[in-house]
Amino acid sequence: MSLYDRLRRNKMIKTDILIIGAGPTGLFTVFEAGLLKLKCHLIDALPQPGGQCSELYPKKPIYDIPAYPEILAGDLTEKLLEQCKQFEPGFTLGERAETLEKQEDGTFIVTTNKGTKHHAPVVAIAGGLGSFEPRKPLIHNIADYEDKGVEYMIKEPEMYRGKNVVIAGGGDSALDWSIFLSDIADRVTLVHRRNEFRGHLDSVEKVQELKNLGKVNLITPAEITAINGDGRVETVEVTKKGEEPYLLETDHFIPLFGLSPKLGPIGDWGLEIEKNAIKVNNSLDYQTNIPGVFAIGDVNTYPGKLKLILCGFHEATLMCQAAYQIINPGKRYVLKYTTVAGVDGFDGTRKEAPKAVVKAFD
Amino acid sequence: MSLYDRLRRNKMIKTDILIIGAGPTGLFTVFEAGLLKLKCHLIDALPQPGGQCSELYPKKPIYDIPAYPEILAGDLTEKLLEQCKQFEPGFTLGERAETLEKQEDGTFIVTTNKGTKHHAPVVAIAGGLGSFEPRKPLIHNIADYEDKGVEYMIKEPEMYRGKNVVIAGGGDSALDWSIFLSDIADRVTLVHRRNEFRGHLDSVEKVQELKNLGKVNLITPAEITAINGDGRVETVEVTKKGEEPYLLETDHFIPLFGLSPKLGPIGDWGLEIEKNAIKVNNSLDYQTNIPGVFAIGDVNTYPGKLKLILCGFHEATLMCQAAYQIINPGKRYVLKYTTVAGVDGFDGTRKEAPKAVVKAFD
Ligand SMILES: Cc1cc2nc3c(=O)[nH]c(=O)nc-3n(C[C@H](O)[C@H](O)[C@H](O)COP(=O)(O)OP(=O)(O)OC[C@H]3O[C@@H](n4cnc5c(N)ncnc54)[C@H](O)[C@@H]3O)c2cc1C
Ligand SMILES: Cc1cc2nc3c(=O)[nH]c(=O)nc-3n(C[C@H](O)[C@H](O)[C@H](O)COP(=O)(O)OP(=O)(O)OC[C@H]3O[C@@H](n4cnc5c(N)ncnc54)[C@H](O)[C@@H]3O)c2cc1C
Repeated sequence: MSLYDRLRRNKMIKTDILIIGAGPTGLFTVFEAGLLKLKCHLIDALPQPGGQCSELYPKKPIYDIPAYPEILAGDLTEKLLEQCKQFEPGFTLGERAETLEKQEDGTFIVTTNKGTKHHAPVVAIAGGLGSFEPRKPLIHNIADYEDKGVEYMIKEPEMYRGKNVVIAGGGDSALDWSIFLSDIADRVTLVHRRNEFRGHLDSVEKVQELKNLGKVNLITPAEITAINGDGRVETVEVTKKGEEPYLLETDHFIPLFGLSPKLGPIGDWGLEIEKNAIKVNNSLDYQTNIPGVFAIGDVNTYPGKLKLILCGFHEATLMCQAAYQIINPGKRYVLKYTTVAGVDGFDGTRKEAPKAVVKAFD
Repeated sequence: MSLYDRLRRNKMIKTDILIIGAGPTGLFTVFEAGLLKLKCHLIDALPQPGGQCSELYPKKPIYDIPAYPEILAGDLTEKLLEQCKQFEPGFTLGERAETLEKQEDGTFIVTTNKGTKHHAPVVAIAGGLGSFEPRKPLIHNIADYEDKGVEYMIKEPEMYRGKNVVIAGGGDSALDWSIFLSDIADRVTLVHRRNEFRGHLDSVEKVQELKNLGKVNLITPAEITAINGDGRVETVEVTKKGEEPYLLETDHFIPLFGLSPKLGPIGDWGLEIEKNAIKVNNSLDYQTNIPGVFAIGDVNTYPGKLKLILCGFHEATLMCQAAYQIINPGKRYVLKYTTVAGVDGFDGTRKEAPKAVVKAFD
């Protein structure tokens, strides 16, 4: 555990709205909450924000975001981050929200699988199809090496500087990280059980180029069939189809076989679940059966629900109004247009429309 | 009445969803309906689409459109038009929807103040704060000259080519149309009852420049106090503060004192009205008390309603699902992501994500 992790374990992160899930819905919640002067903190199992958009299809265009005839899913994430930046969201990334405990005073404590604790009067579950969990290769002792040389997601690319790295997989993640790490690592080896890779044209072309330059070593069709090492990964066993297995020295083994979402622990929090989603009151504020806990975006269900990005935006906006009432009981909220009132960030910045000029002509 | 108007009067415009109001909500409805293969036609009292955004604050920034950290209201309209273009919406502009008649077969006929008739199985009222109606100057006989030289909105700028034009007003519309028409009309005179104009810096500066070049004549502080002419405007009476009135020859008198929204005839259609808005069932599909008639965007009300642009987007999307069921009874709709299925326009164009490449490296 790093010093940072240890410090964090002892600290309670406090915020107004604790958001579980940093997908498009969670990110836009930060902005809408900010307009109401409410602060947000987000937890996500992924090492980066963006949810499905950044994990599953960052380079693909979406055509039904209102007023964007076309936008790449990755760019959508960037825009949402830029929009909410003024409101300085906190992030607990690469950790899964594991437990939800209601306190006597009605507030909540949410603890992650790494023990990080968060305390807030309002919890917004924006968990999409669930927490993204890696598909793991079937190697009997792989669990022993997790975080000891085996990583299923790349959180801090810098930790691979000067290292020997073996990546396994045949899709965009495997291709793109091979490209990225070829500049950082000492040696990058890409192993795939087929000869054919499947990915964006530019990624495929770039890997071919790096292969020709000797900057990425390709081993296909092959699989990693064993991991060895004393406490940390030292070698992996490579089995090429129809050949004898052999050992390859490496510091890291990174199987990138895709992440798939699992509702996971949220299913055990006492929330009403229907069709693998959380039932909410859509006629008012998207609150769940636990007062103070809301569910917005793909993770919720109600009559007529559509699992689309634009729906989460509206749900988040209405939900923030209800959160405001919980956090500021009895206080009346008066809607102000951003165009008219401007936007005051928690970072001290202010956005505002240029004022009209009043002038007599000479 | 122009030939075009006369032809139209005899024709019944048929469509799947008849949308009343071409503001942001109405425009996005065209796109969402198009994804479901439903065709739309829009009626708006304004000569241009965009609703409040284009009539009231086209050059002002909005900060709370999801994934747009900032966008000018006029640009938002452009983007929405671009996004729905593939679905070839029809427009009846510059006309007010006056009556709604339910037919025996459950379909509707909507007739405008100019007699244009529209026939559709589903009506979506996206009328915002109401039909934009001009504020008129208090000149006793002004009604006699309406559309005979007096215009409160500029529909076709080309009709002013080579003409003498008098514009009255002191805000952005008066400034911007003076600038625009100074290139088209033979002479542009701008009359305002104060010396000071109020508008965007660049508009104010441009008018000053045109005044210096003699391309816009300014008369302030002054008012138009009478209109004369045999069947058409020939002269207007100018009264400068503290001076004797005098006559000014002109072909057109265009008072631009702003347009203000009035719920108007929609209030008499038998819809449940509350707080000057139409009550809808927000727990399902934003249908009104008249089955087949929906109300979306600023024009509707329900518990927790917010009159914001992003709300209309979501309401429109859910409403289109219900419209689909009315138009295709019993047919099951399967949601497809635009990213995955692409978008097929009614104009024969197709948008689609580039396919992944499957390749073995050599
Ligand atoms: C290939 C593809 C194409 C698509 N195309 C479109 C399209 O064209 N238009 C459209 O509108 N939608 C599209 N979608 C759907 C769209 O991506 C989702 O509607 C959207 O991502 C939902 O956003 P969200 O924020 O609600 O959830 P998500 O994006 O799923 O984000 C939820 C986040 O919560 C995290 N999380 C969940 N549980 C926990 C936990 N216990 N602890 C920590 N973190 C947790 C997850 O790791 C995840 O990052 C597409 C989806 C896919 C897969
Ligand atoms: C100065 C200002 C700043 C704003 N800032 C923001 C902001 O920052 N963020 C935000 O989200 N919102 C903002 N708004 C509100 C936003 O503009 C509205 O929420 C939005 O325009 C509503 O869209 P709509 O399509 O529902 O209705 P509208 O834009 O009002 O369009 C309705 C249209 O219907 C037409 N219509 C109505 N009845 C009839 C009829 N009987 N026949 C024919 N046509 C008819 C009208 O002429 C109008 O063009 C602002 C509004 C103003 C005035």
